[in-house]
Amino acid sequence: MAEAGLERWESHRLVFEEYLEGLTFTEEPELSTLQEAMRYSMLAGGKRVRPTLCMEVARIFGAEPELALPSAAAIELIHTYSLIHDDLPAMDDDDFRRGRPTLHRKYDEAMAILAGDAFFGEALTLITVHQQGTPEQILAVVRELADSTGVEGMVGGQVLDMAQTGLGSETDPRTLRMIHRFKTGALIKSSARIGAIVAGASEPESDAVSEYAAELGLCFQIVDDLLNATSTTEALGKSAGSDEEQGKATFVGVFGLDGARREADESTARALAALKRISGDTSGLRGLALFVRHRGS
Amino acid sequence: MAEAGLERWESHRLVFEEYLEGLTFTEEPELSTLQEAMRYSMLAGGKRVRPTLCMEVARIFGAEPELALPSAAAIELIHTYSLIHDDLPAMDDDDFRRGRPTLHRKYDEAMAILAGDAFFGEALTLITVHQQGTPEQILAVVRELADSTGVEGMVGGQVLDMAQTGLGSETDPRTLRMIHRFKTGALIKSSARIGAIVAGASEPESDAVSEYAAELGLCFQIVDDLLNATSTTEALGKSAGSDEEQGKATFVGVFGLDGARREADESTARALAALKRISGDTSGLRGLALFVRHRGS
Repeated sequence: MAEAGLERWESHRLVFEEYLEGLTFTEEPELSTLQEAMRYSMLAGGKRVRPTLCMEVARIFGAEPELALPSAAAIELIHTYSLIHDDLPAMDDDDFRRGRPTLHRKYDEAMAILAGDAFFGEALTLITVHQQGTPEQILAVVRELADSTGVEGMVGGQVLDMAQTGLGSETDPRTLRMIHRFKTGALIKSSARIGAIVAGASEPESDAVSEYAAELGLCFQIVDDLLNATSTTEALGKSAGSDEEQGKATFVGVFGLDGARREADESTARALAALKRISGDTSGLRGLALFVRHRGS
Repeated sequence: MAEAGLERWESHRLVFEEYLEGLTFTEEPELSTLQEAMRYSMLAGGKRVRPTLCMEVARIFGAEPELALPSAAAIELIHTYSLIHDDLPAMDDDDFRRGRPTLHRKYDEAMAILAGDAFFGEALTLITVHQQGTPEQILAVVRELADSTGVEGMVGGQVLDMAQTGLGSETDPRTLRMIHRFKTGALIKSSARIGAIVAGASEPESDAVSEYAAELGLCFQIVDDLLNATSTTEALGKSAGSDEEQGKATFVGVFGLDGARREADESTARALAALKRISGDTSGLRGLALFVRHRGS
């Protein structure tokens, strides 16, 4: 993490955590349990990849990173809701996340479903009430989130992922890529694009940074699969080899270890190539792409 | 339903059903099951109160009712998602809705959670891509939905409702009103307000029609409680007296039969008074308010 530019991420993260910590949704005492449940989930830490990416992209295109905070927080709330719902007994049935009970274990299933649901409306409030910009810009931010959270986005990706579980290596490469493009890639790409929108970047530069982010999301997933297949449980902090046990569709299962490593390298190369089309200081994005590729190794 | 203006609702409903029938979300074969599940829920019929209210309000303020269709459909998709999630085993645990298996019975719980989730993104796409209007108008539509679907809206109302179940008549009147203002009132109010927004109505007239719709939503709920307490199961088409059995917080439980009837009359009077502040032809809205008050009696 000593590479030039990477210290910027920690600075964005601290600013973002402080903003998130200050968010409340109601002063009605009757609704305090719902609000506590939402804050329990959204303040659980984590790398905050999406919001800090949004802030860094805004910075690259000449805005103060703080300008992007309302939209960056909206993205993180939507990401948080997707984790809450994915953890539910009817889906991945996880009891723990980041070392703490998942929301349906801490409260109950109904609260977990509803807290997740409430995050979407609150995310929209952040954007439409608190994000600075022209109506055209704010609308473009909303449209970007609409794109990445519907059927051909985050939700459809989760449906595909669940449908493929059990099939393992029988999943075809096209479907595997589609799962991850929709499930995690879409919102990561939107994070970058929204940073570009609020900073008023040109269309070609927005496209370049979107392309970078799409590859970043893909590479992140491939490396996740590689780590799951090759690490010890101790080094990983979660059960190593669990993907294979569950018959999950993974890049290692479909392409083999060497094939998956090659896919990750190619994806990283495409991410770095996309950055060449941007005139600003992209050292932070370059550092992030290399970090994502080589983490854990 | 023979009262002047009421035939308009049927005309709006037919136009709306045709629009909804034409909505698709993806052409990816891998996502066809998700799309089928969503269409199963959204095409289950029903009165379509919210979208037709939106269309009628747009008409009153001088627009073609068809202008409001994308936003009206977005509202109905959000309403549909709330029904799907409310029916889940962890919430109301209903096996049937409108005589057909609920979505989690027809498919499974995971699909029901995810289909519900997907509706929100698709609703935003309808508004941001297909609704005609200035960027300011479209943004006002999104902000309206943000308001009515978050913590102090539909989701918070459902949380409050579940928290009060079992307490029955011990619920205080303020909490009871809050439950319904948030749970169903907020989205019904937004339906009217969004019709006014897309038609470019003035602020005072938008406020008047919002007030009307808030009272309409309240009266609808009070009459629902009255019917549940006084009808036979046969006449109601669902289990009569089920609210009391489940210990639900109802207007009849809190105010008694006569008190609840008085609340309904007062609410209707306020709804009709609000209409007087609108210069257009509000006979359809007037007829709807009277129909809602006297249905089943």
